[in-house]
Amino acid sequence: MAGNSFGQLFRITTFGESHGAAIGVIIDGCPPDVSIDLEFIQAELDKRKPGQSRITTQRKESDTAQILSGVFEGKSTGTPLAMIIPNEDQRSKDYDHNKDIFRPSHADYTYEAKYGIRDYRGGGRSSARETAARVAAGAVAKLFLKQKGIEIFGHVSSAGTIDAPDLNATDLTKLLEIRESNIVRCADPAAAGEMIELIDSIRKQGDTIGGKISCIIRNCPAGLGEPVFDKLHADLGKAMLSINAVHGFEYGSGFTGSEMKGSEHNDIFKPADAGNPVTTLTNFSGGIQGGISNGMDITFRVAFKPVATIMQSQQTIDKEGNAAEIKGKGRHDPCVVPRAVAIVEAMAALVIADHLLRQEAYK
Amino acid sequence: MAGNSFGQLFRITTFGESHGAAIGVIIDGCPPDVSIDLEFIQAELDKRKPGQSRITTQRKESDTAQILSGVFEGKSTGTPLAMIIPNEDQRSKDYDHNKDIFRPSHADYTYEAKYGIRDYRGGGRSSARETAARVAAGAVAKLFLKQKGIEIFGHVSSAGTIDAPDLNATDLTKLLEIRESNIVRCADPAAAGEMIELIDSIRKQGDTIGGKISCIIRNCPAGLGEPVFDKLHADLGKAMLSINAVHGFEYGSGFTGSEMKGSEHNDIFKPADAGNPVTTLTNFSGGIQGGISNGMDITFRVAFKPVATIMQSQQTIDKEGNAAEIKGKGRHDPCVVPRAVAIVEAMAALVIADHLLRQEAYK
Amino acid sequence: MAGNSFGQLFRITTFGESHGAAIGVIIDGCPPDVSIDLEFIQAELDKRKPGQSRITTQRKESDTAQILSGVFEGKSTGTPLAMIIPNEDQRSKDYDHNKDIFRPSHADYTYEAKYGIRDYRGGGRSSARETAARVAAGAVAKLFLKQKGIEIFGHVSSAGTIDAPDLNATDLTKLLEIRESNIVRCADPAAAGEMIELIDSIRKQGDTIGGKISCIIRNCPAGLGEPVFDKLHADLGKAMLSINAVHGFEYGSGFTGSEMKGSEHNDIFKPADAGNPVTTLTNFSGGIQGGISNGMDITFRVAFKPVATIMQSQQTIDKEGNAAEIKGKGRHDPCVVPRAVAIVEAMAALVIADHLLRQEAYK
Amino acid sequence: MAGNSFGQLFRITTFGESHGAAIGVIIDGCPPDVSIDLEFIQAELDKRKPGQSRITTQRKESDTAQILSGVFEGKSTGTPLAMIIPNEDQRSKDYDHNKDIFRPSHADYTYEAKYGIRDYRGGGRSSARETAARVAAGAVAKLFLKQKGIEIFGHVSSAGTIDAPDLNATDLTKLLEIRESNIVRCADPAAAGEMIELIDSIRKQGDTIGGKISCIIRNCPAGLGEPVFDKLHADLGKAMLSINAVHGFEYGSGFTGSEMKGSEHNDIFKPADAGNPVTTLTNFSGGIQGGISNGMDITFRVAFKPVATIMQSQQTIDKEGNAAEIKGKGRHDPCVVPRAVAIVEAMAALVIADHLLRQEAYK
Repeated sequence: MAGNSFGQLFRITTFGESHGAAIGVIIDGCPPDVSIDLEFIQAELDKRKPGQSRITTQRKESDTAQILSGVFEGKSTGTPLAMIIPNEDQRSKDYDHNKDIFRPSHADYTYEAKYGIRDYRGGGRSSARETAARVAAGAVAKLFLKQKGIEIFGHVSSAGTIDAPDLNATDLTKLLEIRESNIVRCADPAAAGEMIELIDSIRKQGDTIGGKISCIIRNCPAGLGEPVFDKLHADLGKAMLSINAVHGFEYGSGFTGSEMKGSEHNDIFKPADAGNPVTTLTNFSGGIQGGISNGMDITFRVAFKPVATIMQSQQTIDKEGNAAEIKGKGRHDPCVVPRAVAIVEAMAALVIADHLLRQEAYK
Repeated sequence: MAGNSFGQLFRITTFGESHGAAIGVIIDGCPPDVSIDLEFIQAELDKRKPGQSRITTQRKESDTAQILSGVFEGKSTGTPLAMIIPNEDQRSKDYDHNKDIFRPSHADYTYEAKYGIRDYRGGGRSSARETAARVAAGAVAKLFLKQKGIEIFGHVSSAGTIDAPDLNATDLTKLLEIRESNIVRCADPAAAGEMIELIDSIRKQGDTIGGKISCIIRNCPAGLGEPVFDKLHADLGKAMLSINAVHGFEYGSGFTGSEMKGSEHNDIFKPADAGNPVTTLTNFSGGIQGGISNGMDITFRVAFKPVATIMQSQQTIDKEGNAAEIKGKGRHDPCVVPRAVAIVEAMAALVIADHLLRQEAYK
Repeated sequence: MAGNSFGQLFRITTFGESHGAAIGVIIDGCPPDVSIDLEFIQAELDKRKPGQSRITTQRKESDTAQILSGVFEGKSTGTPLAMIIPNEDQRSKDYDHNKDIFRPSHADYTYEAKYGIRDYRGGGRSSARETAARVAAGAVAKLFLKQKGIEIFGHVSSAGTIDAPDLNATDLTKLLEIRESNIVRCADPAAAGEMIELIDSIRKQGDTIGGKISCIIRNCPAGLGEPVFDKLHADLGKAMLSINAVHGFEYGSGFTGSEMKGSEHNDIFKPADAGNPVTTLTNFSGGIQGGISNGMDITFRVAFKPVATIMQSQQTIDKEGNAAEIKGKGRHDPCVVPRAVAIVEAMAALVIADHLLRQEAYK
Repeated sequence: MAGNSFGQLFRITTFGESHGAAIGVIIDGCPPDVSIDLEFIQAELDKRKPGQSRITTQRKESDTAQILSGVFEGKSTGTPLAMIIPNEDQRSKDYDHNKDIFRPSHADYTYEAKYGIRDYRGGGRSSARETAARVAAGAVAKLFLKQKGIEIFGHVSSAGTIDAPDLNATDLTKLLEIRESNIVRCADPAAAGEMIELIDSIRKQGDTIGGKISCIIRNCPAGLGEPVFDKLHADLGKAMLSINAVHGFEYGSGFTGSEMKGSEHNDIFKPADAGNPVTTLTNFSGGIQGGISNGMDITFRVAFKPVATIMQSQQTIDKEGNAAEIKGKGRHDPCVVPRAVAIVEAMAALVIADHLLRQEAYK
């Protein structure tokens, strides 16, 4: 119950600090006979890895995943699938100044309060590096979902106050292409340009900025999600809120929906026609009703706060509670959302894979 | 794993449908020697019960909790504390028209898709009646937290587009008094008046409206929350998103925070003075850093969609997929937020009680 | 994690003390569309209830189960199935003498050490009365397993030093008839006679005696059980060891098998013939290999210590640690095994139902 | 729920096959500030490793554990402690003959039935090699328990039909010395001699033999164990039964106790004298009453079947169900108990560490 596991039947447990030997993950509950494509896993990791562009941290780590178990002749065997990602670019001395000081809006103070002991190098376990293990595991979940025809697509829908317009989401493959053609990972080219400009300027100020990621899950069968506490959107929400720097989650109509009337908000069912599944005229429900998927696109949005490490002087305190001054060193992201798209998709894949198996059990 | 349990160490399991014999809850993990004040539990339930005012459903149920086990001579014994709330006002015939029809934006279609069988009376397990069990359990959690000095305060901060101004939250007891002095449960009297007017007018239209609840947890010790997946705000988020009709959750700076710069958003630590705990000058972190409480007020906000049952005709489909028409019968809430304040507080209490015990284990 | 739940996907949570309002159970994870036959559930409870014959306790309780939720028109709905059994014959004054004294080999001292508070009436939560909730839940599991053709049969194979000979277990229905035709529930009529005589004589001495129950699970499909910690026999073992008074568990060849050679102990596979499943010539494996069922009969044996409450004077200590004397009052069983057969079968049914669902999830 | 995790608060998850890159374990929930002595961990592994003496398998693997995370400057940090043990001596070709054949009383047939796919090299996940990960994790648990003064001692009490006499267990340190002075790990030197002779002779026949391990847990505080399903002995039983080849578990009086009378079996409390904890005159309860430790020595016994791989020809079947013949190749143990002592102790340590934390949470 120490909180390093996620999921019930497709269950992952992650380990590792920023500056230890390696980080990694065990997937317990990957069904047998899933084709495990290591190149695909690596490609997913590459979307999260540091040093990909001028608007991400300049740290260089190859983030190469190795599979230690659970795969035989290219297929999952049903036994635990363990992966490790060795840590490489460990300039531990970059962090010596953190030993006795609490960085503002970081986890230094709270880890000390919780454990009384703290691996201060690079944030230790609170480092966003931990999310690489999630991306590797999420890639395996995606390989499983692919067999079921389920697609997951996320993109940067806001950077600071710059919002992308609502997407025409008919063709996710095409949107993915557009998204990957720009370094901010926004599927609207015009907005992408503005976002990059903003982040560039913020970076030059030694400052950081927040943003939002929107996500669509397509072809999810109706019936996933448990009715009371483990509602599908509650598990998606927890998954997203567990990602470093996330401060908000909404699905379907979200916060805006709270300002609407029932007569506007209700999603009217369309009478079925030959062989087609039931659909609704609108999708304010975000594909989930009563906590259970209804077969429509599942849509949600995730808000990220600005990165706490800034290249400016800040007042703070040391371990004795005395006033101190701190200035960010090292190499940090001016805005996390371009790299976080891969994490959001990975967590979404893990939730859906888990609920697919949970629903299988009772059918 | 069928999703009717919540929490790890302070763990509840709920049961019951809208129109069965009773609903209820087992609390497994209430520590021994907590004073169990049945009157307090009942007072909490009364804040959620139907029929309290003209802006709630006119259904009448006394929602009387009975304790079946786990209490001896007024104290918890450490063994499972079971409570039941008998169902009373069951006009099952009000729901006969739902047997073969799927109400828009309800859980009828998805339950049918999930289980292939459905207790259609009053929404069955998807009925918000289930939340009474949460309120009863949450009241026990509050009794436990009271011993630790922890306070929880929620109120209606928005109804539709009417927003209460930010509260001066120095004195939660006083705010509670104001909140309970008006039927919409908003701690700002002026806004409360406008909200009641809006809901009255919506009700007369046979329509419904959404809203938001804001919540503060005070005196939570630093160190609660687990670092990776079970971050304190991730568990709070899941708790809130599991409440019927919730479409969004944010904590601290929330969605707005995603538009801020790091230099504005970072919460600067105040040098300690004699005997006082560490505090921060601002609280955009909402009392949680790296997923772990830092001793400041924990603040979050929850968005509720409008109630799906409206007293207007709507197009829909029947079980065979044919077009049909439906008009809400029965007695329903024009806006859920006044009654939902008790549910939000209860779920918050359950999360904090659980994480308190989890932290105790490792100290 | 307070230990009142059992199972993962077919999961039960029990509550209740000997002398509270009621005991009961929530089954979370009963699949939808199982026919819930209340008469069958009651018949199972009747096999465990007190007062059935001269060799059981003379306490009289009807142990009548009521279903509160999860069943609609005679079928399970997939939502939590809650049952309560009201407590009736509560002569609490019979237990006043236990308030300040620790009975030898009871749980009085350890509950006090654990909780610092204790409902001393009738053993409180440590009372074997709690097992009635298991039998009710196990009966539901049996109804589910019946749909899959799986049979479970237990009987008293030893009382004290009197052992029944090995059964010819070709026809479980016939053995069940024999078992139910005698009050000790042994499927060998001659041994049954001797056992009854022994228990009668022990009872007259104001003493008690232990015994053993043997159990067969038939038609369990191959493939159930998880390979490492949740081996099928490990979960059966935990289930049995969790029953009051159980001191030992063995499956297949058990303790005797540890004295055998590999060349004697290996179960040789029989070449398949038309349409028949694979079988083995012997079954020292007890139907389980590598923790996973192989389709053969699953066989195990459970050892019960003698009941601790005897009608003789015994030295003991009081809460202050002073010497004291105690003599059992009330009405107690001279030997638990005749009533425990129903409990052993119920726990076996719960384990198999759970593992069936777990295997379904990954298929 | 795929069964590769054990424990609730001190929780381990293991991974790895006999012939993959590595096996390993994540400990999630090791409290912070435990001194992690890698030499001690290695010494524990050395007691389990193959090739230690002429009566174990002649396979040579150094079984060297590496710590990947969760330790900083020699202390646990409270975050996941991951260890891997690379696989070395992989003569995969030794197992090519197993590809299409089911070895008698192995897990080949059942894994195939369960997963439809199987890593046949060296038994894959069903290999006892998996237990090395348990021993490494158990060593960490022992380091934690050592801080609390809790000792765990196991030894081989039977090999085949040769039983060691009951030990005088006053001084566990001395018994440990005796145990480690002979290759069969029996704390009675005379019995040890006979056992070694027996195993030698069995090995020469190309056969194998079973055995038993007895274990004592000393200085466990009263109050550990949860009252209903997670009784301390139920969790110990499950832990032991999850070890490869175990067919039986008993604690305290065990199977023999079922033949005793209550008047003989009850453990009479001794009136307390100055400052000493409560004790009992006898210990048929094996240190556990009502599922909760009472402060006396916890005692239990574990029965292992003979190793299934024998160096003799046996009839069996292939994947198509045709008759086949098989003869063990490779290097195997004639008797597992000498190497299994370390595993039994490790699993015991994991159970006690977990229940210590569980009890801490509610105090």
